[in-house]
Amino acid sequence: MPPHQRATMAEIAAAAGVSVPTVSKVLNGRRDVAPATRDRIEDLLRRHSYKPRRAQPAAAAGLIDVVFVDLGNSWSMQILAGVEETAHRAGTGVVVSAVHGRVRTAPDRGWLENLAARRSDGVLLVLSELSADQFEQLSGLGIPVVVIDPVGQPDPAVPSVGATNWTGALTATEHLIGLGHRRIAVIGGPEDVLCSQARIDGYRAAMHAAGLQIPPGFVRTGDFTSPTGYRETLALLDLPNPPTALFACSDEMARGAYEALYERGLRVPDDLSVVGFDDLEQARWSIPPLTTVRQPLTEMAALATRMLLTLAAGDKLDASRLELATPLIVRDSTAARA
Amino acid sequence: MPPHQRATMAEIAAAAGVSVPTVSKVLNGRRDVAPATRDRIEDLLRRHSYKPRRAQPAAAAGLIDVVFVDLGNSWSMQILAGVEETAHRAGTGVVVSAVHGRVRTAPDRGWLENLAARRSDGVLLVLSELSADQFEQLSGLGIPVVVIDPVGQPDPAVPSVGATNWTGALTATEHLIGLGHRRIAVIGGPEDVLCSQARIDGYRAAMHAAGLQIPPGFVRTGDFTSPTGYRETLALLDLPNPPTALFACSDEMARGAYEALYERGLRVPDDLSVVGFDDLEQARWSIPPLTTVRQPLTEMAALATRMLLTLAAGDKLDASRLELATPLIVRDSTAARA
Repeated sequence: MPPHQRATMAEIAAAAGVSVPTVSKVLNGRRDVAPATRDRIEDLLRRHSYKPRRAQPAAAAGLIDVVFVDLGNSWSMQILAGVEETAHRAGTGVVVSAVHGRVRTAPDRGWLENLAARRSDGVLLVLSELSADQFEQLSGLGIPVVVIDPVGQPDPAVPSVGATNWTGALTATEHLIGLGHRRIAVIGGPEDVLCSQARIDGYRAAMHAAGLQIPPGFVRTGDFTSPTGYRETLALLDLPNPPTALFACSDEMARGAYEALYERGLRVPDDLSVVGFDDLEQARWSIPPLTTVRQPLTEMAALATRMLLTLAAGDKLDASRLELATPLIVRDSTAARA
Repeated sequence: MPPHQRATMAEIAAAAGVSVPTVSKVLNGRRDVAPATRDRIEDLLRRHSYKPRRAQPAAAAGLIDVVFVDLGNSWSMQILAGVEETAHRAGTGVVVSAVHGRVRTAPDRGWLENLAARRSDGVLLVLSELSADQFEQLSGLGIPVVVIDPVGQPDPAVPSVGATNWTGALTATEHLIGLGHRRIAVIGGPEDVLCSQARIDGYRAAMHAAGLQIPPGFVRTGDFTSPTGYRETLALLDLPNPPTALFACSDEMARGAYEALYERGLRVPDDLSVVGFDDLEQARWSIPPLTTVRQPLTEMAALATRMLLTLAAGDKLDASRLELATPLIVRDSTAARA
């Protein structure tokens, strides 16, 4: 390849004795390339007047993308508020997408095409997933991904931010046991969602440590929304020997439990102590105010956004999987067993 | 100006005998230019190989911007869900911004610079405003603006979508009067916010039509959030002769009223009938379920988005100020006066 002749990225890589992704890293301003290698590649790029296909591959698009499964709830809104505030301070805009479709957690085909056309500095996934294809395409575009509250066991290569779900559930259940309750039921989220698995396991661990049995039918499955909390609470109340306390794995499901009790003429906490998980604003304002495990959603979102902006700038992360603490907030929905 | 010589937009305008904005309209693909004028300008642009500064001035950016005053509530989330769904179907991304700062309703300086740098097909303002400067700059960039729930009396030139606030409040108050209540109080939003003014006026109109006096201290001012509903309800309960019914101009303030009553050991609706405004999801789930005026937030957002996309495509709107109907949803928080 004579000097001053236009070259492709593959030709530069061959001449430098490195892989194409390494050339790509140098072009994208990433720092994880050895200085000597970087110098060699930069020299070749200069000599061959290499022009990437995009006008400014290293220039920031000034936008990051956030993908939610569902926008219509205040859980999502707290996350979005944290993302927007952090991105705003960095002068970066936030593009919001929702996954459209009932059973899917990945955005559709058009989403990635639009994103590639306009460019993006990074993608935050909130309780949503990407297909293997989509991950590969984003990776090929040099767009980093960070996950908030991973749905499944996340790929160790993908940075993620979650909460201490197991410990939070353990503490919530211990609180009920400490109040004298023995018959404690749980309503979890979807079985394939990682944070729900961790919460159910934390509940089981606390019951086990206290030497308590979990009666048949006491472990229920909802989908984190109020209607499923309502449905599963009615099922629990219909058991021959119903629980005296309930751990609902989301505030929305706890709200559904309140509604089921109200409909049956029963009272919180007199007839059933209820603990939630999330500490959404409405938990404080429900009547009686809800005892719940606080999930620091805004802080989780802010942290994930900072991680994403760090990766977008080509820097390395100190840690790629983080869990924030989940304190128990005791209010009036739990009381000593009568 | 000899043919085939590069020309500026001002030179093209002078040669065509039109203004610079008219040349700009043709460049931006707008249709509100007379065919003969358009032909003359296009001919000049071709002959002088006019190259606009931006690569593709008429090409869609594929993004619209939404500006919220506050992201952290489910009112905003319902609006955002409507915007996102409508934009998604049009293949357009949604960039979300919040106004940062306590007393301001306009985004800061950096917002417009970032937006201009990355381009935007249009801006939706939600209960937020722009400074005259910002409006002028957006207009100069050819970026249309649509307002959802205008804060003040909107500029007639700016298209807007709202709800029938006055009629909704009238209906809510008539409902309470129909239940036999005579001492009916109201808690409004900020006095300078248009939708709040309309709701208070609707309340006054219903009271007047029924020949009822509004006692001193019965018209209170909050800011639409729960804490102000709580604070103003306590003030109402402390009056020598408190109301038997309350119209709160937002569901959040109605929630604050519930909390104030709970704290005083009083009950809804036995001690005070309460009507809200919005019909957020939590209205249905509050205990007792809240009677409220339904504001079709998702539909309002979808309509405003369609209007914005129409303007972005250079088409005209059929109507530039729309108000959607607000039906009263009667639940259990209102009862006949004891």
